[in-house]
Amino acid sequence: MNFILKPIGIIHTPFIDKSQTPIQPVRSREVGQVCVFKEFSDGLQDLDGFSHIILVYLFHQSNGYSLRVKPFLDDQLRGLFATRHPNRPNPIGLSVVRLIGRQENILHIEGVDMLDGTPLLDIKPFVPDFDLRLNATSGWYAQRSQE
Amino acid sequence: MNFILKPIGIIHTPFIDKSQTPIQPVRSREVGQVCVFKEFSDGLQDLDGFSHIILVYLFHQSNGYSLRVKPFLDDQLRGLFATRHPNRPNPIGLSVVRLIGRQENILHIEGVDMLDGTPLLDIKPFVPDFDLRLNATSGWYAQRSQE
Repeated sequence: MNFILKPIGIIHTPFIDKSQTPIQPVRSREVGQVCVFKEFSDGLQDLDGFSHIILVYLFHQSNGYSLRVKPFLDDQLRGLFATRHPNRPNPIGLSVVRLIGRQENILHIEGVDMLDGTPLLDIKPFVPDFDLRLNATSGWYAQRSQE
Repeated sequence: MNFILKPIGIIHTPFIDKSQTPIQPVRSREVGQVCVFKEFSDGLQDLDGFSHIILVYLFHQSNGYSLRVKPFLDDQLRGLFATRHPNRPNPIGLSVVRLIGRQENILHIEGVDMLDGTPLLDIKPFVPDFDLRLNATSGWYAQRSQE
């Protein structure tokens, strides 16, 4: 069963080129705008109360994939699914960003790490009961992120 | 620009019917298995060090969508994108689950909330630096989840 995705908007960020995107979005303070296509505006109601949202988007500049990759933070090959590398069988990206505010169909966000012009697939509220795991351990990332 | 998704595996859970799936997965202790198609096995290396993974999957029993929905936890209509309702323009689901262990191309997981037979699109490691937001506030969910 295959399924066709259709963008619901476009994400605008300061990052024109892959080399500019931050590796660890939690440390990014860069702001951006999510321009949701007007036909979907009604679905944005009630988002305002959430401090953070999850953006689901296409890695639109991804180009094929390998099952073993050398991540940006590492110097050895890792299994693709143990990384957040953009080249994946289904090139879907996830980022948690801070929601600064909304003007009709435009969301102002902080902490962006995706490329300018990224096609948006979905917006989900970040809900601590669903999304927080305080005791999570992070494999090979744990070492690398402290360097 | 449209994009075609292709499942990379199937998620098995105890939930045969939509009415059985838990509303708040963080409280679920149900176990399941992720059966990744063998052609993608090599991509699972190095996953073992992570306590939690993010499963990206299709809401395969979703059927159309409305931009205003009454969520399971609520009694009034909310904007679709302020909910985690399964009927969405792009019916992509996200769940953070605990990784119990791996046997070749099968992952044993705990805390499942999706239907048995769910098509898997991607696996990402849960990385606190990327995914944790300790100070997040959760809009209309905040009230409802305490009831």
